Amino acid sequence: MIQKLIGQIKEKNAPVVVGLDPTMKFIPGHLLKEAARTYTPCGFGSEKLDIAAQAVWLFNKGIVDAVADIVPAVKPQVAMYEQFGIPGMIAYYKTVNYCREKGLIVIGDVKRGDIGSTSAAYAIAHLGRIAVDGEKLPAFDEDFATVNPYLGTDGIKPFVDVCNECDKGIFVLVKTSNPSSGEFQDVLTQSGRPVFELVGEKVREWGEASMEGDYSNVGAVVGATYPEQGKILRALMPHTYILAPGYGAQGATGKDLSYFFNEDGLGAIVNSSRGIIAAYQKEAYARFGEEGFAEAARAAAVDMIEDLREAIASR
Amino acid sequence: MIQKLIGQIKEKNAPVVVGLDPTMKFIPGHLLKEAARTYTPCGFGSEKLDIAAQAVWLFNKGIVDAVADIVPAVKPQVAMYEQFGIPGMIAYYKTVNYCREKGLIVIGDVKRGDIGSTSAAYAIAHLGRIAVDGEKLPAFDEDFATVNPYLGTDGIKPFVDVCNECDKGIFVLVKTSNPSSGEFQDVLTQSGRPVFELVGEKVREWGEASMEGDYSNVGAVVGATYPEQGKILRALMPHTYILAPGYGAQGATGKDLSYFFNEDGLGAIVNSSRGIIAAYQKEAYARFGEEGFAEAARAAAVDMIEDLREAIASR
Repeated sequence: MIQKLIGQIKEKNAPVVVGLDPTMKFIPGHLLKEAARTYTPCGFGSEKLDIAAQAVWLFNKGIVDAVADIVPAVKPQVAMYEQFGIPGMIAYYKTVNYCREKGLIVIGDVKRGDIGSTSAAYAIAHLGRIAVDGEKLPAFDEDFATVNPYLGTDGIKPFVDVCNECDKGIFVLVKTSNPSSGEFQDVLTQSGRPVFELVGEKVREWGEASMEGDYSNVGAVVGATYPEQGKILRALMPHTYILAPGYGAQGATGKDLSYFFNEDGLGAIVNSSRGIIAAYQKEAYARFGEEGFAEAARAAAVDMIEDLREAIASR
Repeated sequence: MIQKLIGQIKEKNAPVVVGLDPTMKFIPGHLLKEAARTYTPCGFGSEKLDIAAQAVWLFNKGIVDAVADIVPAVKPQVAMYEQFGIPGMIAYYKTVNYCREKGLIVIGDVKRGDIGSTSAAYAIAHLGRIAVDGEKLPAFDEDFATVNPYLGTDGIKPFVDVCNECDKGIFVLVKTSNPSSGEFQDVLTQSGRPVFELVGEKVREWGEASMEGDYSNVGAVVGATYPEQGKILRALMPHTYILAPGYGAQGATGKDLSYFFNEDGLGAIVNSSRGIIAAYQKEAYARFGEEGFAEAARAAAVDMIEDLREAIASR
């Protein structure tokens, strides 16, 4: 799967992921009205949740249609869908399927991870197939999933097995983009190295079991907001693809990211969520207006791609 | 919420959680047949998933009806439902609601955790209410959720806020029950203390913002399979309720757990999943047969309760 992602990145010359993290405040009024006319009640929870989830779906569809030809991948954040209950999970399911139909690589930002038998169930849920009555059936079926490493190898190995079996990939959290990520991740261990470096080393090791060419199907999440740590991790994990969140709304710029890439210009893919999907609410793209939310997203994606191409060129 | 849990534990004199982690191989044949007659297609994914999820729901209902008067709480593991896609999430939703109607405390074993804004969405999804069109609506609405601490305070605080706002609770992973949990959790830091102790200290600190009597709504997950670490953490976090998985199928016994409890006989609640819900498949309870799966579960729960009462008495 990592080679499929790399192929898309090269074809579009854009190491960019659009984060599909819709919240009610991003959704234009005309879509809320359309949702109220077009929703189907699922029967679980208030119908207002069905309407909200339908609005999320219409919003996503607009964004995806506007950016599918210029970006290689999308990353729906499942929390933004779970908060609407079953209707929200239906919107997630429809979004994943629609994006895959459009030829986009789908990174399910689910940050799952548990003891072995439970991680195996999560791996099946998001990347694999479940055996039922003699058939092997997909559940959510993203292309990649993000995974939390706190439980160690037990919690990761079932995901790697499914990656190999079903041609999928994962990104394991190593150094996250948020302000308090250092509380545990940066703690110095007795070897003098911080925890995130030990995690990075394990990610490299886990990745050896799922190599495809120069890169592994086991990638790493490294926040674009931490350029110094990114540089260290880039060197520590030369064959690991880095998924870097934190660009835009969280404060990172192309310049912060130049050392996340390898000399081949590959090795990293950068996510922006709010900065793209809610671009129409920002001054720089206000000219598109609420009705033009999708065109604004496209314009913001074009600008981000340009910024990253420069960052790679100047490294 | 922690006082509600304590009230239930005292009333039933049973510090026990039944883990509702159904897998296809636990479900008796007669329920699979019943499911094939009674399922409703949800329209998302193969109908075989609808049938499997219906079987899960019927199985859970049987177990819950058999144990609701003797145990205070249940802990559905959401991974076991997610693997069936949307139909599975519907079975999860129905299970949570049914258990709450039966007066059981529901611990959603979801192990969520992310950057602040995303953790806020997860907290809403599982414990809070989402604002839609002037109303605040519940989504999955468990009583407690398990949370992963790897992202630090940012990822926890939104959950604590929702606990305070909606009278709910969380259990934060500190020392997990699986064999490889030590890979990162036991790493010694420069202070000479392992990572799990730093996490335990933070859990105590986070918990101060949500106290109810002697205990906090912010609890900790500490694997019953690690009695030594449990003893250390019990002393380090005197006001933190411990959720201890790993009893039974993962190998821990009542004896391993005696030091997880405080002198008041409170402070811990112990989970068993397979050991109870699949008891009928074990020699000790085989006399109940497949049709008697629910009675077997009840008998296994009674035995576990007895074992834990002895452990508390002998501490």
